[in-house]
Amino acid sequence: MPRHLVRVMQLLGRLPGVGDKTAQRFALFLATGDETTARELGRELSELRDHVRPCRACGNIAEVTAPDETALCGICRDPRRDPALLCVVARVQDLLAIERSGAMRGRYFVLGKLLSPLEGVGAEELPIDALRARVRDPHAPVAEVLVATPPSVDGEATALLVARELDAAGVRVTRIASGVPHGGDLEFADQVTIGRAIEGRKSFG
Amino acid sequence: MPRHLVRVMQLLGRLPGVGDKTAQRFALFLATGDETTARELGRELSELRDHVRPCRACGNIAEVTAPDETALCGICRDPRRDPALLCVVARVQDLLAIERSGAMRGRYFVLGKLLSPLEGVGAEELPIDALRARVRDPHAPVAEVLVATPPSVDGEATALLVARELDAAGVRVTRIASGVPHGGDLEFADQVTIGRAIEGRKSFG
Repeated sequence: MPRHLVRVMQLLGRLPGVGDKTAQRFALFLATGDETTARELGRELSELRDHVRPCRACGNIAEVTAPDETALCGICRDPRRDPALLCVVARVQDLLAIERSGAMRGRYFVLGKLLSPLEGVGAEELPIDALRARVRDPHAPVAEVLVATPPSVDGEATALLVARELDAAGVRVTRIASGVPHGGDLEFADQVTIGRAIEGRKSFG
Repeated sequence: MPRHLVRVMQLLGRLPGVGDKTAQRFALFLATGDETTARELGRELSELRDHVRPCRACGNIAEVTAPDETALCGICRDPRRDPALLCVVARVQDLLAIERSGAMRGRYFVLGKLLSPLEGVGAEELPIDALRARVRDPHAPVAEVLVATPPSVDGEATALLVARELDAAGVRVTRIASGVPHGGDLEFADQVTIGRAIEGRKSFG
């Protein structure tokens, strides 16, 4: 197999969830399909990291136009966002999902990872100091921290850690609700989900 | 979301089997993960089509080193390959899978697609004329054409078409065996596979 195709396969194999077979399928598509796709994707990826950078305030993806610009994302720049409400998420993907819901009027803090005893990720690997500094920022004081890590074992452990670490910060720490999803069927919901939906029940009106 | 990230997502969404969510996950990985992956993949993809081209003899991927070079793949260049045995496959992926088996000592012909009445792919879209010309090539006369299209509805229809079209070419046309795969369990094999395994039974010794 041509050397350049092998290298493309190796690099594509680094993408999340892409194994050898999928990397080969992608590489052959790029090598034999429409030529402009390979060339344009190549050009865009060569330059991508000159144009995007993590937001210095929240960790979201920020656009930069000049090389020496300090990155600040669109949400952190938006004056209509409530700086007193800070939503803590594990990943940028989760931030984007919450944004699509339109239900979050505050700002964000991206942890980048979750506590994971099984995968050996300890508390010292999470940016807790940066989160504490963000919460205490005198220019944008935070009143409520909404922890929106996923309702999984690692996500719950991370939420508990964040709540404990912010205990002395004088802010209200809240957690997203967990229960039967909208449009979901009780018959097919797992026991933990149903248990949480019952524990988290609310009164009408 | 930054404009360049949106464009990268759109381009990644053209890869086979990649939907919006996967394209977003790939784009965020390239935008936030190890920077050299994005840059190197970008450089490799920008140049990929300068280095690889379809082999003019068989349609396999061929490496080219000079821009005006006529592409001939490693298999078609290899004098140890038997030119009298030609294996017809649907895709380059199938050729690579057969090569991994080490069981094919001849050369190949890549159709590029299968007949597919359901998807509206008719016989006129298959390179039958090129295959016939290849079989009749006076410099490399073919004695046997082994049709290795998959044992699916479209693959069988394509195999029958190839056999019929080569009827007058004076070559032996054969078909790969279909049956219970090596290491497979009869209990879990589907009825058609078991039926074919019985129809295609062979004597011992």
